[in-house]
Amino acid sequence: MNTLIVLAHPEPQSFNGLLAGCAVDVLQSAGHRVVLDDLYREQFDPVEKASNYPDREQPFAPLTEQRAHHDRGCLPADVQREIERLEWADLVIFQFPLWWHAQPAILKGWFDRVLVYGGLYSGIMRYDRGYFRGKRAICSVTAGSPERAFMPFGRAGNMVEWLWPIHSSLYYVGYDVLAPQVSYGVQGGGIQYQQEAAFREHIESLRADWVDRLEGIERDAPIPFTGWEDWDEAGTLQNRHPMRWRLS
Amino acid sequence: MNTLIVLAHPEPQSFNGLLAGCAVDVLQSAGHRVVLDDLYREQFDPVEKASNYPDREQPFAPLTEQRAHHDRGCLPADVQREIERLEWADLVIFQFPLWWHAQPAILKGWFDRVLVYGGLYSGIMRYDRGYFRGKRAICSVTAGSPERAFMPFGRAGNMVEWLWPIHSSLYYVGYDVLAPQVSYGVQGGGIQYQQEAAFREHIESLRADWVDRLEGIERDAPIPFTGWEDWDEAGTLQNRHPMRWRLS
Repeated sequence: MNTLIVLAHPEPQSFNGLLAGCAVDVLQSAGHRVVLDDLYREQFDPVEKASNYPDREQPFAPLTEQRAHHDRGCLPADVQREIERLEWADLVIFQFPLWWHAQPAILKGWFDRVLVYGGLYSGIMRYDRGYFRGKRAICSVTAGSPERAFMPFGRAGNMVEWLWPIHSSLYYVGYDVLAPQVSYGVQGGGIQYQQEAAFREHIESLRADWVDRLEGIERDAPIPFTGWEDWDEAGTLQNRHPMRWRLS
Repeated sequence: MNTLIVLAHPEPQSFNGLLAGCAVDVLQSAGHRVVLDDLYREQFDPVEKASNYPDREQPFAPLTEQRAHHDRGCLPADVQREIERLEWADLVIFQFPLWWHAQPAILKGWFDRVLVYGGLYSGIMRYDRGYFRGKRAICSVTAGSPERAFMPFGRAGNMVEWLWPIHSSLYYVGYDVLAPQVSYGVQGGGIQYQQEAAFREHIESLRADWVDRLEGIERDAPIPFTGWEDWDEAGTLQNRHPMRWRLS
């Protein structure tokens, strides 16, 4: 199995950095090939903008230029490199801290720039007919607040809801999305409280959970999504679809 | 009323640019003061990183440095400028296209960098005890797909869910969040199909809707959220809270 680890944390010594390193070690020990894609170290530019496309039309329409540059084989070099990594990988691990109810900007912009229109998706190449169908993706996320605050009705909000946009974006381009690995209670990025024994113990148990998860990850089942067979021509779920009648 | 318009689109001639310009005109005509905060034009850097804090501790912990630099009065100049704009504004309008089920990276990073820990929020200064309580915020969002695809059960997913993270982030720092203004069916950023009469008509009706909305915006009621009075000490919704027993 080829695994790409996309890491989005500014500090290599953070708990996110440690979990990414863990994944490299565990997967390589099991005989898999692994590439670590450290967006901060590579100084990935997350801003989709006109100057990314020197040979563009006026006014600037991002999707138009994405498609045109893909078709002409002249996408920005960093975007092209990321796409080649994705094409190589059977499994993609996104390792990031939850900042403001979502992934950090450097990773949000990775979606904005790398998943190019016309190349990696189109009106008919989406969801279960997506470019990356048959490949798998998982988010490994750290959060500062304790788990109980992220429960439904919790003060920190429902973690399922915070990850729904990124999960849906991954499914949009065809990935089978595994249930996320969430490490709760990682205050200060796992740095601030390193001196406290109880915190070190908590951090160590989270690390051990991740190692366990990785060892069985090839057997994990993906999150169920609806697909083309479930929608009518207008793109809405068919009236007789059982999900319409589920109490959530 | 003082209004700050935070615009996050790379092309000034896009429909997002047009809607932001509309808001300037309508609100100024009604006698309000308006500042347009064009993140692309100002080349706002959305990446929260160590080099933003020249005088930092090792290893780099973002929240630690945010608090320390806020307390010492030496936040990065662009962050300080944004905070002063927010302190001035009674109403903040976020104008952006929905890219990958969320705001563009330049605006996601605005949250990561500008809403500084220790300054604009803390464990006890959040939600309905937040820094900006009494002020209002609204997202004005464009989306490429038609409205019917964004309905519950729709192929493009539920718009309420895509905006829930940004709405929650705004509420987190105390804002009363108004229902969003969503302009559906704006393909190609409103640029690609300008030659087609039906599309120009659609765009014009969306613009007129926004003008109507702005003219009555002072009377809009905010989205209801739960607050400190609703939670128990662990941060979960009290057992007897009526929301727990609502069929969603």
